[in-house]
Formats: sequence, C-alpha cells, structure tokens
Amino acid sequence: MIDWTIAPITASVSILVAIYLYFYINKQSSGTDKMKEIAGAIQEGAKAFLKVEFKYLAVFVVVVAAVLAIFLNPIMAAAYVFGSICSALAGFLGMTVALKANVKSAFAAKQGLNKAFPIAFRGGAVMGLAVVGLALLGLSAVYYFTADPTIVLGFSFGASAMALFAKVGGGIYTKTADVGADLVGKVEMNMPEDDPRNPAVIADNVGDNVGDVAGMGSDLFDSYVASIVAVMILGVIPGLASFDNILVNAPLIFAGLGAVASILGVAMVRVGKKGDPGNALNLGTYLTCIMFGVITFGVTQYLGINFGVWASAVIGLIAGVVIGITTDYFTSIDKTPVIKTAEASQTGAAVNIITGFSYGLLSIFPPLLGIALASFGAYTVAEAYGVSGVYGIGMAAVGMLSIVGMIVAGDAYGPIADNAGGIAEQAGLEEEVMDITAKLDAAGNTSKAITKGFAIGAAGLTVIALLAAFQQIVQNATGKVISFNLMDPLVLTGALIGIAIPAVFSAMVMLSVGKNAFRMIEEIRRQFREIPGLKEGKEGVKPDYNSCIDIATKGALKELILPSVMSIAVTLAVGFIGGIQALGGYLAGSIFSGLIFALLMSNAGGLWDNAKKYIEAGALGGKGSETHKAAVVGDTVGDPFKDTAGPSLNTLITVMSLVASVFAETIVMYALL
Amino acid sequence: MIDWTIAPITASVSILVAIYLYFYINKQSSGTDKMKEIAGAIQEGAKAFLKVEFKYLAVFVVVVAAVLAIFLNPIMAAAYVFGSICSALAGFLGMTVALKANVKSAFAAKQGLNKAFPIAFRGGAVMGLAVVGLALLGLSAVYYFTADPTIVLGFSFGASAMALFAKVGGGIYTKTADVGADLVGKVEMNMPEDDPRNPAVIADNVGDNVGDVAGMGSDLFDSYVASIVAVMILGVIPGLASFDNILVNAPLIFAGLGAVASILGVAMVRVGKKGDPGNALNLGTYLTCIMFGVITFGVTQYLGINFGVWASAVIGLIAGVVIGITTDYFTSIDKTPVIKTAEASQTGAAVNIITGFSYGLLSIFPPLLGIALASFGAYTVAEAYGVSGVYGIGMAAVGMLSIVGMIVAGDAYGPIADNAGGIAEQAGLEEEVMDITAKLDAAGNTSKAITKGFAIGAAGLTVIALLAAFQQIVQNATGKVISFNLMDPLVLTGALIGIAIPAVFSAMVMLSVGKNAFRMIEEIRRQFREIPGLKEGKEGVKPDYNSCIDIATKGALKELILPSVMSIAVTLAVGFIGGIQALGGYLAGSIFSGLIFALLMSNAGGLWDNAKKYIEAGALGGKGSETHKAAVVGDTVGDPFKDTAGPSLNTLITVMSLVASVFAETIVMYALL
Repeated sequence: MIDWTIAPITASVSILVAIYLYFYINKQSSGTDKMKEIAGAIQEGAKAFLKVEFKYLAVFVVVVAAVLAIFLNPIMAAAYVFGSICSALAGFLGMTVALKANVKSAFAAKQGLNKAFPIAFRGGAVMGLAVVGLALLGLSAVYYFTADPTIVLGFSFGASAMALFAKVGGGIYTKTADVGADLVGKVEMNMPEDDPRNPAVIADNVGDNVGDVAGMGSDLFDSYVASIVAVMILGVIPGLASFDNILVNAPLIFAGLGAVASILGVAMVRVGKKGDPGNALNLGTYLTCIMFGVITFGVTQYLGINFGVWASAVIGLIAGVVIGITTDYFTSIDKTPVIKTAEASQTGAAVNIITGFSYGLLSIFPPLLGIALASFGAYTVAEAYGVSGVYGIGMAAVGMLSIVGMIVAGDAYGPIADNAGGIAEQAGLEEEVMDITAKLDAAGNTSKAITKGFAIGAAGLTVIALLAAFQQIVQNATGKVISFNLMDPLVLTGALIGIAIPAVFSAMVMLSVGKNAFRMIEEIRRQFREIPGLKEGKEGVKPDYNSCIDIATKGALKELILPSVMSIAVTLAVGFIGGIQALGGYLAGSIFSGLIFALLMSNAGGLWDNAKKYIEAGALGGKGSETHKAAVVGDTVGDPFKDTAGPSLNTLITVMSLVASVFAETIVMYALL
Repeated sequence: MIDWTIAPITASVSILVAIYLYFYINKQSSGTDKMKEIAGAIQEGAKAFLKVEFKYLAVFVVVVAAVLAIFLNPIMAAAYVFGSICSALAGFLGMTVALKANVKSAFAAKQGLNKAFPIAFRGGAVMGLAVVGLALLGLSAVYYFTADPTIVLGFSFGASAMALFAKVGGGIYTKTADVGADLVGKVEMNMPEDDPRNPAVIADNVGDNVGDVAGMGSDLFDSYVASIVAVMILGVIPGLASFDNILVNAPLIFAGLGAVASILGVAMVRVGKKGDPGNALNLGTYLTCIMFGVITFGVTQYLGINFGVWASAVIGLIAGVVIGITTDYFTSIDKTPVIKTAEASQTGAAVNIITGFSYGLLSIFPPLLGIALASFGAYTVAEAYGVSGVYGIGMAAVGMLSIVGMIVAGDAYGPIADNAGGIAEQAGLEEEVMDITAKLDAAGNTSKAITKGFAIGAAGLTVIALLAAFQQIVQNATGKVISFNLMDPLVLTGALIGIAIPAVFSAMVMLSVGKNAFRMIEEIRRQFREIPGLKEGKEGVKPDYNSCIDIATKGALKELILPSVMSIAVTLAVGFIGGIQALGGYLAGSIFSGLIFALLMSNAGGLWDNAKKYIEAGALGGKGSETHKAAVVGDTVGDPFKDTAGPSLNTLITVMSLVASVFAETIVMYALL
C-alpha cells in the first residue's frame, strides 16, 4: 500500500468535521413559533418525499443488484448496493441539515449578517463534507477489501444510478409542484406566491430542497467517485498488484489531500458585520484551490509521484475556475446576455425566448473550449513526463473535483440562504432582517456560477476519462489494442445513435413534468372546490398539503423510471448488438450531445430567470408590465430546462459510461457483431 | 472514359426540358391587372434582393478566388468561381420561374384544379431540372477539362459557399421582413396580414420566395454536388487515370441516370379534375425512386459495375424515403406531437414551447437512426462486394440525391402554391378559386415532409462521405494511413470545439434576425409617421416598399458575413494550428451537432407552425382565443428556428467539410502541431 490510506483517514476527518458542524447548527435557535411551523411543514414534506423515494429506489437497487450478481458476480453487486447507500446517505444528511439551517439562519439574521452567514454556510458545508467523506470512505472500503479497481466501478455505478434518480426525480418533483402551485394559485386564484392557502405551497418549498440540495449533492458525489475510479482503472498495470501501483493510488491520494484543503477552506470562510458574503465564498474557493496545489505539490514530491500527474491535476483545477468565470458571464444579471434578453422582452415573449436561447447556444462555446484545452494540456503534460495521456485527462478531472467539499458547501449554501429569505418573509420578520437574508441570497448566486462551472467541467472530463477507462478494460480483457476510429462504420453508427440519446432523454423528462403537473393541477382545484372555507382563508381551515406532496412524489418517481431504464437499456442493447466499437462510438456521441444540451439548458434557463429578475428589480417597466409578462414566459420555459433536464444530463452520461464499463467484459464475450 | 459522359448528356437534356417547361409556363395568362400588379411588385422586390445579393457575393467570390489562386492554384480558383456561378444561376432561374408560376397558377385555378396544378408543379420542376442540369453539367465540364476530382472539389466549394449565403441571407431576410411587418402592421396598427398599406408587405412576400425557393434549391444543389465529388475522390486509385476508373465515374453515371428518372417522374405527375395533388406528388416521387432503381440496375449490369455500388445507392434512396415518412410524423397537423403541443397551449405560451421543444428533441432520433443504419448498411454491402466501405456510404448519399430533380420540383412547388393562394386572396378572386388554391397549398405540405427528409438524410450522409474524402486526400498526400481515433487528444480537442460551432453559428444568425428586424421596425414606423394619408389608406397614397426591401436586403447581407466568415476561419484555424487529426475530430464534431440542431430546429419550428394552424382551423377555441395567442408565441419562436438557423446548418457543415478538403494538402505541409 503506497499511502493511499490517506484517503480514508481524511474522509473520516471530513465526516467528523461534518458532525461537529451539524451539532453547531443544531444548537442554534429556530426562532418564533410561526417560523418553526413553516420550517416544520417543509421538513415533513421532504421526509415524506425521501421515504417514498427510498422505497421505490430500494426495489430498483435490489433488481439491478440481482442482475449484477447473476450476470457478473456477487461482489460487484454488493459494491453496487454499497455505492447506492453511500450516495443516498449523503443526500439525506445534506438535506436534513439544510432544512434546519435555513430557519436558524433566518432567525440569526436578526443579530446581523455575521451571525446568519456562518449558519447558512456551515449548513452547506455539512453537505459538502458528508459528500467527500462518504464517497471517499466508501470507495476506500471497497478498494481495501477487493484490491480491484474494477469492483470499485460497481460502487461508482451504484452512486451514479442513485444520483440519476435523485436528479430526475427531484427535477420532476420540484417543477411539478412549482408549475401546479403557480398556475392554480397565482393565475387562477390570484393568490400571492407562497400563500399558505395554496395546497401545493409546501410541496413547492420541499421541491427546492429536493432538487437543489439533494440533487446537486448527489451529482457531484457521482462525478467525484467516477473520476477517481476511472483514473484508478487507467493506472492499472497488468501483473502489478494495485496496492503497489502508485498510478492506481494517486487519485485517492489527491482526493484525500483535496479533502484536507476543503476542510481548511471551509474553516477560512468568514465574513465581518459589514462584509460581502459573496466575496467570502469566492475567496474561500480560491484559497482552497491554492492550498490544494501547494499541499499536493509537497506530497507528490515527498512520495516521488510523477510531476506530470500533479501538473494534470492542477490544469484541471485551473480549468474549473476559468470555466466557472466564463459561465458566470452568460447568466449574470449585470452582463450583456441577461440585459439584452430582458430588453428583448419589450417586443414580446417570443423575442425574449429567441434571444435567451441564442445566448444559451453561445454559452456552449467557452466551457467546451475549456474542457478541450484542459484535456489537451493534461494529456500533453502527462505524456511529456512519461505517463499515459488519457491518465492525465483523468487526473485533470480528479484535480477539478478534488475540492468538491468546498464546491458543494458553496453550492448548497445557495438554497439554504434562499429558503432563509422565504421563511423570513412568510414569518413576517422585520425589514432589516429581510435585507440581510437578501444579501445572503445574492451571495449564493455569485458563488453558484463558479461552482456550476466546476460541476459541468468536471463532468465533461470525467466522462472522457470513463470512456478511456472503458477502452482500457476492453484492452485488458481482450489483450488487443482498441481504438475508436470515427471512420469505422460501427463507431460511426454508434455515435449517430449516441448523440440522439441525451435529446430523447431530455424530451421524456420535460414531457413528464407536463404530465405530472396536470395531475397536480387537478388535485389543487379539487381541494379548493371541496374544502369549505379554504378559498376564503377561513380561520382554522387548512388545505391537505400531504396529498399534493404525495402526487408530486409518486408522479415524479413513476415518471423517472422510463427515461432512466431507457438510457441503461439502450446502452446495453448497443453494446450487445454492435459490440465494443459501436459502444465506444455511442458513448462518445452521448458525451458530445450531453455536454451541449446540459450547457444550453442550464445556461439559457439561468439567463431567462435573471432577465425576469432584472425587470422585477425595476428596469424596463418593472413588475406587472407587459415586458415583465413576456420575461415570465421565458423564465417558465427555462424552469424545466435548468432544473429538470439540464442538470440530469451530466449524470445521465456518467451512468451510461459506467454501465458500459461494468458490462464491458461480458459484452466482449457475447456481442452479436 | 467509361461512359460517365452520360452525366453531361442527361444534364443537357434536363436543361432543355426545363427551358421547354419555362416557355410552357410563360405562355399562360397572368390574369387580371390587379393580379399582375401584385405579382409584379413581388418580382421587383425579389430582383432588387438578388441584385444586391449578387453584388455583395461577387466581392466575396473574388476575394476567396484570389486566396485560392495564391495559396493553392489558379485552376482551383477558376473551378470555385464556376461553381459559385452555376449555383447562383440555378437559384436565379428557379426563383424567376416561381415568381411567374404563382400568379399564373392562381389565374388558372379559375378553370379548375387540373389546370392550375400543372403550372405550379412545372414551375417547381423548372427549378428542379435547372439544379440537376447546371450542377451536373458544370461538374462534368470541370472534370472533363482537368480529369482531377480534387479540382472538382473547388467547384463544389464554390457551390456550397454560395448556398450558405443564399440560405443565411435568405433566412435573415425573410424573418426580418416577416417580424417587422407583423409587429408594426398587425400588432401596433391592427392591420390584417398582407395589407397593402404596410410598407413591409412586399418585402414579406419576397422573403418567402428568397428563403423557400432559392434557398432550398441551392441547399440541394450543394449537397448534390458535394456527394458526387466526395465519392469521386473516394474512388481514386493512385496511378490509375480517373477517366479509366469506374469507381471515380460511377457517381456521375448514377447521377446522370437519376436525372433521367427525374425527368420521367416529372412527366408522370398528373392530376384529374377531382384528383388529390398531394397523392400525385408522392406517387411521382415513389415512381421516380423505382425507375431509378430499375434503370441503374440495368445499366450497372451492362457496364459491369460492382453490385455493391448499386446496392449502396439503393439503400440510400430507401433510407431517404423512410426518413421522410418518420419526419412527417412529428410535424403533421393530424398526428400526436402537433395535437399535444396545440393542447399544451391551453396552459399558456411557456407550456406550448416546452412541449413543442420536447417533441422536437424526440424527432432527432428517427432520422439519426436512419442515417446510422443507411451508412452501416451501405458500408457493409460495399465491403461484402469488395468495394471500400466509405465509398459505399458515399454512394448511399449519391443514391439518395440522385432523384434531386424530382425532390426539388416537389419542394419548390410548395411556395408557388402558397403564393398562388396569397395572390388569389389579395386580388379578391372567387370562393371556389380559393378552394382550389387551398388544395394546392395543402398538397405542398404533404410532399414537403418527404422531400425535407431527403434533404436532411442526404446532408448527413454527404458530410460523412466528405469526412472520408478529407481523410482520403490526406492519405494520398502523405502516403500514410490516417485514422481519427477518438482517444487521440487532438481528435478529441477538435471534436469538442467542432460540436460548439453549429450552436454558435445558429446563435449568431438568430440574433442577427433580431437586430435587423429592429431596423425594419424603425423604418415602418417612420413611414407611417411621415407619409400623410398612409395610415388611413387614402386613395393613391402608397408606402415606400423599396426602402423596406432595401433594409431587409442590406441588413441580411451585412449580417450573414460574420457567421459565414467565422465558420470558414475557425475551420482553417483548427486545421493550421491542430493539424489533420484535430481537423478530422472538429469536422466529426460539427457534423454531429450540426445534424442535431438542424433536426431539432426544423422539426420544432414546423411543429409549432402546425399547432397554431390546428387551432386556427377551429380546435381548442380557434383563432383569437387565449390558446391561439399562446400558440402564436410558439410559432414566432419557431420561425427563425425553421427558416433561418435550422436549414442553414446542413450547408454550414458541408462548407466546413469542403474547406477542410480543399486546404487539406496545404494543412499537411504547414500545420503547427
């Protein structure tokens, strides 16, 4: 063992720090009874969702585990189940804390920014450190007991499949509730947002947490694990035991050191009474990056790890920051794309949509260029130092994701701060308190752009590394050198089918939102019709929040099955019919189009959202004007783009790549062509 | 020479038939003075557009020719200029005839369907046969004088560059006029569609012809030539003179025989007094396909051409029909996607857009699967008969495009019939005449679906063949076997950049429409303000149609420069910096994302259009209802999708592939990496 045990050690420390922060948050006050009541209802709803979700997913996990046990081997199946559990646990913990931190942060805002901010941020940090800790500890355990990176793939597959469900299910849930609540409550009944008479209002609040906190956490959990496993596999040297192979262990060492950098980074994030929390968050991220670079440089020198490995990781990290900053440009409220889209709303909804969509298309270029240059740079520097180039690309992904603890902390902070503002508003807190929660919320958007860049860039590099890992597994199994030549008819055919899958998947998921929202609308209308006094807001009359939560939950989970199973089934079908070449082309195609649509949908959605906010802030006629109405249409179109389909695509292509790798050897043996 | 001279011979016959049909149309009556006036104004406007367009393009053609002459050779430059001229001429002739056939067909409708239909259809056939004739005759002439398929590439590049301008320029023009006329005339002034007081009304009518007739014709001209040239290059055997090489000449023979099948097909399209013109058009297409299959089978047997070559071509043709039929499903007014999208409009514009966009995403799958299976089938059957597989893919493209004469005839028929209806309405013809023109128009939509499928499928196969041709040229130049391995860092980097280009191009083009429409709106408002009596419709007061035509024209041509030059410049930059591997990956990436966006935008646009028409036909509240208003938003979003960006993408990826091939040898010598 070459010191890879640093990974489980720092993972354990991460978990301990997370527990410490959890108790810190827990002992803060939850404020007034009204605040407790609101927060309690959201917590109830979220628990209800998770309970049903886990019930559904348990069935799926058992079925897939049985398939793996029968067709591959029981150890792979066990690793798969373990991966699912770790991922689910991280999501569960993160959400639990977020649902406490929001109300406590809102109450602390009464005492000032410097009291409220740490609660919100540390709430996010619990999620971040739980993701790092559980991912790294789980992965290390599987590796320790099997000494076989291929089995660790099973762990990764479990985590990714869970992430896909969490993202798709959460994405459908949140938009079902949102659309239902808005269309009946706001449009038909003319009620304000978050009116407690609206039966879907709690489901709507739950949705934000289900989608933004749990979904995003499991997304990064999944990329994080997948990138580490891919590099481990790329480092395998036949005949050399993995524990003695520095290339297999290096990603674990880097991830372990990244956990240290993240913990230090989290500890450094502080803000004064008059400070700017957005700057504090970004400064924390930059400091974490620098610490990671310095620490890993020292350790790699000490352990004699190839310089090319370190350089690749650092290239990945820098690319992540650069991609984040450029992505920020396209969705920031004070930059050209958002302002032009807001102005376009003056000539109606259609022009708003065309303009926003066009800027969304433009926004594809910088991150793709960043991913392209990072992979080229990492490949070249790795080869220059005698390491395989694809290994270098994988290390770039690991480098980018190494500080995932800090990234998730900053990202989960966003919805906590957002919810804190919502609770403060519903509970009728004072103006100056609201000002503080608004500041907290704005800071979330600043940090979100950079963390989102990381997530997209890392997913891109990770799936490229997974494609290389797939190739490696096939080469190890067949003893032949495999290449995916684009002019090979099977590769080409596979690629043409592969590029269609992310599009079809997005379509299925978005149509599901429509279908499910329709069920929700029916139920809300029924309650207003059948519960006497509800419409009029009679004292003591409450809507049946749970039936709405139930519809959103069951519908989301029902609707996620078809697209998820489709993506796994088509991958296996292409593999078993067309063989390895077709499957390689198919994965490459799905990566290309997955990245395109993920970037387009996420960025266009964010842009439309901010164009609406720009107008709501008073520009171009402000709230209620025709221009505002046009911008609302764009925002509504953007909702399933950015919250349902877009963010699921990263996970989709990871799952497809992992399915291919897990079944690679079986496909080599039984493929038709 | 192995009988390839059949190509120039049948091309000449095509031109003679086109001239005959031209005179047939010319001697028909143009009807009443009112009709002549309306048609005359449209003709004037179209001429004005073409005059300015050709002036701009002449400059571009001269500059590029100079570059080619200096950096490559003067003969290539001459071929390039010749290709531009032939393409421009085909577009000019087609549009000239279409602008006569529309009014004459409208007048003939007074005497019944069986009098009006032949005029409209033969108007389209002039365009179709002119495309075939000029393409094949021009190409043959270059080949005859140089005996070098590589020089023929220059001809193809000229045709494609011209097509790109025609499509982008026409696309921006038509939407500029459309949006401007609608927003000021219909929305601000409450005037009906096509009101003669509206200064942009003639520009709007001109736009339909510029975009639909000339643009579509040059698109197929470009794919047609490119597919033939690609296969000629793939057939080259070093040391064997091209004229003696049956593989180089086969695509010319097939295209020549396809021209014969198209002429016969055109002659067979007939409709009785009570017949269904839609069925007549489709029957004509099917008969042409069958004749092509039979004739080429006989000739290939007679000439001893490899059976694999014939089989590949037939696979391509069948795939074209199948792709057309499946595409039809997603945009037909009586099928689920359109009906569901129309129903979604009941819950507002946003839901209409999400639903239509989702079905647009789904519609990507069948054609991609068709292209994938056709290329795999053609590859396999060619290899089975001892011909190179990529040659087989190229022959599938040639097969699909062989009946381009009939395809363009059916497609150009659409806007002629559409315009005939418009003229009949404006000229106040009788109810029963309008019924007939409506029937003619509906038939255009039926045939359009199948011909559109051909255009997309053929473009897909053509660019794949061009990628193979690019590889072949490099192999011939370097004497080395080249492969584009996806795990090669340069191929990968190139691919990641390549997939972004069609997105960026689409964005630039769509944003241009917005900018240009704004200029148009200003001018229309100015006229209403400054011309006394115009608003009130005072006798004898006419708006200044020409200034609007001028703005649409100059703006469109100005705006098309940046995206067109960008696409050529980035291609050369990737080639000269990254070398052949990067360029190969780049082309493949651009093909993948180009196909995705072309299919998505064209189909979603068509679907939104028909969802609106479905409601206008009386369903879901009909015209003027809230549901209708929501559907209008979708239709407006779809306009630049389907008429500006979507259809330009086929041409874009062809131009990029041709630029790469034309400069391949220079890049081999001077590339940086």
